[in-house]
Amino acid sequence: VLLPDGLVTPCLVVDLDAMDANLAAMAAAARERGLALRPHAKTHKSPEIARRQLAAGAVGLTVATVAEAEVFVGAGCADVFVAYPLWVDAARGARLHALRERASLRVGVDSAEGAAALARHAGRDLEVLVEIDSGHHRTGVAPADAGEVARAAAGAGLRVVGVFTFPGHGYAPGAAAHAAADEAAALAAAARTLAHAGIPASVRSGGSTPTAALTTGGTVTELRPGVYVFGDAQQLELGSCPTSALALVAAGTVVARSPGRVVLDAGSKVLGADRPAWATGFGRLPGNPDARVTALSEHHATVEWPGPDDPPDRGTVIAVAPNHVCAAVNLADTLTVVRMGEIVDIWPVSARGANT
Amino acid sequence: VLLPDGLVTPCLVVDLDAMDANLAAMAAAARERGLALRPHAKTHKSPEIARRQLAAGAVGLTVATVAEAEVFVGAGCADVFVAYPLWVDAARGARLHALRERASLRVGVDSAEGAAALARHAGRDLEVLVEIDSGHHRTGVAPADAGEVARAAAGAGLRVVGVFTFPGHGYAPGAAAHAAADEAAALAAAARTLAHAGIPASVRSGGSTPTAALTTGGTVTELRPGVYVFGDAQQLELGSCPTSALALVAAGTVVARSPGRVVLDAGSKVLGADRPAWATGFGRLPGNPDARVTALSEHHATVEWPGPDDPPDRGTVIAVAPNHVCAAVNLADTLTVVRMGEIVDIWPVSARGANT
Repeated sequence: VLLPDGLVTPCLVVDLDAMDANLAAMAAAARERGLALRPHAKTHKSPEIARRQLAAGAVGLTVATVAEAEVFVGAGCADVFVAYPLWVDAARGARLHALRERASLRVGVDSAEGAAALARHAGRDLEVLVEIDSGHHRTGVAPADAGEVARAAAGAGLRVVGVFTFPGHGYAPGAAAHAAADEAAALAAAARTLAHAGIPASVRSGGSTPTAALTTGGTVTELRPGVYVFGDAQQLELGSCPTSALALVAAGTVVARSPGRVVLDAGSKVLGADRPAWATGFGRLPGNPDARVTALSEHHATVEWPGPDDPPDRGTVIAVAPNHVCAAVNLADTLTVVRMGEIVDIWPVSARGANT
Repeated sequence: VLLPDGLVTPCLVVDLDAMDANLAAMAAAARERGLALRPHAKTHKSPEIARRQLAAGAVGLTVATVAEAEVFVGAGCADVFVAYPLWVDAARGARLHALRERASLRVGVDSAEGAAALARHAGRDLEVLVEIDSGHHRTGVAPADAGEVARAAAGAGLRVVGVFTFPGHGYAPGAAAHAAADEAAALAAAARTLAHAGIPASVRSGGSTPTAALTTGGTVTELRPGVYVFGDAQQLELGSCPTSALALVAAGTVVARSPGRVVLDAGSKVLGADRPAWATGFGRLPGNPDARVTALSEHHATVEWPGPDDPPDRGTVIAVAPNHVCAAVNLADTLTVVRMGEIVDIWPVSARGANT
């Protein structure tokens, strides 16, 4: 990401060419393997990027919340999957009802109680996918229990079209291959229990950015990666995104400087505070692979700057890839879009904070 | 915090009585010790709360950015200190110029270069405080170097009125007393070097929520705590905020449940992802002191629920104190204000995202 002059820091900068290359590469990879691509829009929260994903061949979007679905359906996306075991009361049900009139909508379920509440408040015949735990141990049922949940959902009047999982345990060094194998095995086992219950699982949806390249067609029918749009320091350190593919950085100004160290004005309120135990810091500097963001407070990023060269002067603007780009984007109102170092657009992060 | 019925989760809920009690207690503690109170508004980012702090006796506000100063001056606050070593170019200087016409403004400096840029672009006679490193090792100069920076700032045409520090190394179990002592020693030493340079440091500003109760008057003249308004899980675990003083929680709904465990819909996009090494999890549950938030993703908080009782049913709304309330507030557009379990107001987080 070549930063333009005159940025008001801190801010998030998107390299349009790098992003478009990422969109095209994932679309091609999915197409070649016969997988439907349904990118997770929680990463970018931006209708402009969603339109580009759909134009590149995505079959629809994935979102995490009803509020995100409202933003993207409102922006013209006609096919949305809420990949979350929503708890639906009358108020949320009314919002889902309204969405169903405007778009093709699918929702996750992982319990008989959740399915009953969904059917009651969001209406019968809503399409649902049963969430499976493939090893991340967050939400979702064991594959062996998927048939029972599917039967309960169908009994409540919902239309069960398949199963989905998030192989989040692939977010650790060296873990992606194992997680991708777990994903395929869990989706296959769950689909068998649905078949046993007389419910065909025609959609078997998985995928994450670290595992996407390892997912083959056949068992899995649909991929839902999110982060691949931009990449981030986590993906860099996991080996699933080369530095050249980083399409979003925070631009921060050097405000303090001492031997071997600078402090930037892009802190946790810009980068986000995510830091998995295996990460080497709170972000990475594409321009200096040896630098490490060793401390982060709300408006300060402390960067250790090793090597023979003096660290940059106060006032220098530096690019930092956040650890977790979804968190960084959700802190910004806009993305500054650049091409070959020139600002070409400003995109609103329309679904920022759309958590309900 | 007694949660009202009918909340649309996830959301942030402020208990008005608990918050007002926190404001009154800190104001009284400062008054009794002869300390000026200048609360850090980055915690709440809300003009309504700033007005209450000023009404309770605060002399003005502290902010971290020019954009925050713009919001609070725009809302009528006449006295603002930007406690940050700003790097000021022409554009930021013009914004500071505009602020000076509307309010009493002070800015931090910690280098001769920074002071020169500030004087050049924001105008002569601007009041500044020299930032001192009292042990947190973020920004700020060693006390021994403060006189030199002050002389450079004065030489550039700025009005040096004192010194300030943030004893952030008090954010660890058992560290507050030591950090408060470091703070007083550093401010005293820095003030001596300014005196030696012929520049009286009439303002000696310090303070943080963990150390505030340990700061005595004399050396220190001004306190800048932020988090005390609400408290949070960090302060709870540091011993600087009893559960009864927690005035802000995230309300999350149980969306999944298994023996000894629930998953709530309030994830890192609501609570923030801050987790110091000494924290027991990603937040605390005021209603269940034994529960721990053991995993957090964007829309999921995994809560281990020990003890003989079954965890609450799906659909139950539960209060979670975030680890770091400043980060949580900066993710929200509004705060739902309650009193004895009834919603009495909705406050905008006007300075959310005001990072520039």
